[in-house]
Amino acid sequence: DVVPTCERYAVQRLPFARLGDRDVAFFERLMPGRVVTGEEEVKPFNVDWLKSVRGCSQLVLKPQTTAEVSQVLRYCCEKNLAVNPQGGNTGLVGGSVPVFDEIILSTALMNQVISFDKVSGILVCQAGCVLERLNEYLEEQGFIMPLDLGAKGSCHIGGNVATNAGGLRLLRYGSLRGTVLGLEVVLADGSALDCLTSLRKDNTGYDLKQLFIGSEGTLGVITAVSILCPQKPKAVNVAFLGCQSFAKVLETFTTCRAMLGEILSAYEFMDEKCMELVVRHLKLSSPVADSPFYVLIETSGSNSIHDEEKLNNFLEQAMASGLVTDGTVATDDKKIKASHLRERITEALMHEGYAYKYDISLPVGKLYDLVTDMRARLGQSAKNVVGYGHLGDGNLHLNITADSYSHSLLDAIEPFVYEWTARCSGSISAEHGLGFKKKQFIQYSKPREAVVLMQQFKAMLDPKGILNPYKTLPSAL
Amino acid sequence: DVVPTCERYAVQRLPFARLGDRDVAFFERLMPGRVVTGEEEVKPFNVDWLKSVRGCSQLVLKPQTTAEVSQVLRYCCEKNLAVNPQGGNTGLVGGSVPVFDEIILSTALMNQVISFDKVSGILVCQAGCVLERLNEYLEEQGFIMPLDLGAKGSCHIGGNVATNAGGLRLLRYGSLRGTVLGLEVVLADGSALDCLTSLRKDNTGYDLKQLFIGSEGTLGVITAVSILCPQKPKAVNVAFLGCQSFAKVLETFTTCRAMLGEILSAYEFMDEKCMELVVRHLKLSSPVADSPFYVLIETSGSNSIHDEEKLNNFLEQAMASGLVTDGTVATDDKKIKASHLRERITEALMHEGYAYKYDISLPVGKLYDLVTDMRARLGQSAKNVVGYGHLGDGNLHLNITADSYSHSLLDAIEPFVYEWTARCSGSISAEHGLGFKKKQFIQYSKPREAVVLMQQFKAMLDPKGILNPYKTLPSAL
Repeated sequence: DVVPTCERYAVQRLPFARLGDRDVAFFERLMPGRVVTGEEEVKPFNVDWLKSVRGCSQLVLKPQTTAEVSQVLRYCCEKNLAVNPQGGNTGLVGGSVPVFDEIILSTALMNQVISFDKVSGILVCQAGCVLERLNEYLEEQGFIMPLDLGAKGSCHIGGNVATNAGGLRLLRYGSLRGTVLGLEVVLADGSALDCLTSLRKDNTGYDLKQLFIGSEGTLGVITAVSILCPQKPKAVNVAFLGCQSFAKVLETFTTCRAMLGEILSAYEFMDEKCMELVVRHLKLSSPVADSPFYVLIETSGSNSIHDEEKLNNFLEQAMASGLVTDGTVATDDKKIKASHLRERITEALMHEGYAYKYDISLPVGKLYDLVTDMRARLGQSAKNVVGYGHLGDGNLHLNITADSYSHSLLDAIEPFVYEWTARCSGSISAEHGLGFKKKQFIQYSKPREAVVLMQQFKAMLDPKGILNPYKTLPSAL
Repeated sequence: DVVPTCERYAVQRLPFARLGDRDVAFFERLMPGRVVTGEEEVKPFNVDWLKSVRGCSQLVLKPQTTAEVSQVLRYCCEKNLAVNPQGGNTGLVGGSVPVFDEIILSTALMNQVISFDKVSGILVCQAGCVLERLNEYLEEQGFIMPLDLGAKGSCHIGGNVATNAGGLRLLRYGSLRGTVLGLEVVLADGSALDCLTSLRKDNTGYDLKQLFIGSEGTLGVITAVSILCPQKPKAVNVAFLGCQSFAKVLETFTTCRAMLGEILSAYEFMDEKCMELVVRHLKLSSPVADSPFYVLIETSGSNSIHDEEKLNNFLEQAMASGLVTDGTVATDDKKIKASHLRERITEALMHEGYAYKYDISLPVGKLYDLVTDMRARLGQSAKNVVGYGHLGDGNLHLNITADSYSHSLLDAIEPFVYEWTARCSGSISAEHGLGFKKKQFIQYSKPREAVVLMQQFKAMLDPKGILNPYKTLPSAL
């Protein structure tokens, strides 16, 4: 069983009220049949997907409407009850589960599409829509979601926005800061803030919705999202390559960006250790000959003949110049899925026992040095030190595995990994957020004045601090 | 001469201190030779580009460094002196010039490129760099700025960010909310906030810089910008088309988006009235036969053969199906410039006398109805009612011209134009911002609670209200 977070990390509970029978009765009246109690029933909501943190909430609420979310928060604010908003519970930094007994406010039943406009490509939907379902819905109408990530089968769009999720398509379609056009948010006091516009451009005052994007549920609960969706590309091609060194991975990227230009939609890399784990634990096989590094390139375009010509020209040049030693191109859907073994690395890592996960932004040139340095530093004390990630975005996923969690191994990794990152002006969390596990390390990526300002925003929007407490911002400076 | 703003609009001066000789002496010591006084010398900074508003500042300061901006604001905050930050003074809503005697803080001498990384395409520069100079600098290295607008020859990147400028490339490269990676901002009390990171992804805490993007200098003074720049496309093609109705303009857009896909970089339209004015006042000539509507399509791609093939296929289909009645394609640089008469419409409108300018976001289908309705409403009382804009972004520029400014014509236009827009859930300012002229109309596009929250942010970041007063937010609700 997972050790409760409050024990493992020795956190102090803040003086929120404790849930009483009268509170439960209130919620039962508000949303009959959608109030979950009972240790076993609540358990899946208390533990994160990685099984790395565990809260001890006794109550899960499943509102269906914004009005219900408003009523819940108004009540909790009044009674000083802490609330943990939860989407698909696929977060990797302990942001999506309670630390103590916070009430879990799940968006699971807020799963309705509100509207989709085929001319503009603008989708408006409730926060609890599952990313993959939305993508399927859009594909039927010739569009796709502007983001894609491994957890798509269970993550909620509201959670994606609340954590400013990156993922595989960011290189092409940009971040949620550009594609999210509007949000509806319920604030800590229960008031609803309607910024749910569906306009590509709107310069009337400050862009309030940006504050909620990436705030991990600490400033408000996102209840609906308006998002700009790109047209479904007519042709998607995938190439899987083997490179002999990280320097060649980088040079291949520069070449590829120049030759593929506007059709490049992903440039992902993984090291041989990753491949080994995916092969061993998930029984997948590598589509190319063994190499120290592997690269996955995806193109998306409107003319398959043009795209294939560009991709083949690029591959020819990459092979001829020795950048790439082996490569394969997959054009049909089946092959695309086969070569998406990149997406399943997280899953393979779970089989190792325990994984210390780091999600780092660095200048691309230095991206892999951190993996090499960490491997040398830890030596035999780690089972595996692996690196993979979104190279096109300067985003490294560094994972260190061991049979089980150990304090001493953690001490060897941290703060070394953060100091290393700060020296390169990198970010200690590129796309995963800070949640519970990383919040004390914010100062490695943000100056003190910025953190003070963030705390002022938090105090202004949630003066009682009931929204997702113990997360995102450090408890003290 | 332009009527002073405070007279024309009967505004009340807020109780800021008045500039004294000791203040001027302080600034002279701080930045010798870079303090402008004297009515004639200050005049160009007091009047906006449209010659529609006029302040009566007696002092312009031209800092060169962030430290100087800090010292200026610390002093002004202490002495309760109001400050008007100014970039290239190309704004269209009276946001860039003082209303009364605010001290003008010009970024004109903050024009240094700090760094450019050719691998990542990330540019870091001071706020006063002129957009066109930056673009030239980048082109030499194979990159371009992600935004382009008519005022590029004089607008500053800091002003572009402060007003969240849109422009011609937004359709392709997205908004500044996605491409601006970092900002350095000096707050009202003179403290510098360093969020000048150069990372594509950084999810460590709230994204503070977003609050300053589009806040029109009311929350802080942007002193430096980090921005992600796309590669310079190897091929740029322009097509200029004539359409017989707005319905055909829309249908042409849908067809074009499907057939040109990822290489489409602009879809602009203008009506015959616009063409008439450009021809009459600027002596330019139309490249196609007279039509009720004109469309300018730009493609940017990495393979000129592929791009031309796509563009020609599209044109063939558009002509064959009767969507387009006349069209021409320009591939070399000279022709591209010739057909950029779209960019000079604002200038042509200036020759009319006075122009009432509206910059509206609407669902694309309804975009031109506003022009038609306005024309019918105003009849002979307006000289011309013209419509043009970024159709691909749902952005209409509606202009009503007259020989000179008249209160009664304004009353016929407003609030009609705002009510019309609000009924369609549009935005009363798509890209120009609110500045001085539109701030009282914010409630047509934003709910009361949102405006209240904006005022709280303003009060938190600038408690004395010294930064660009009388702008962006309404004086009362």
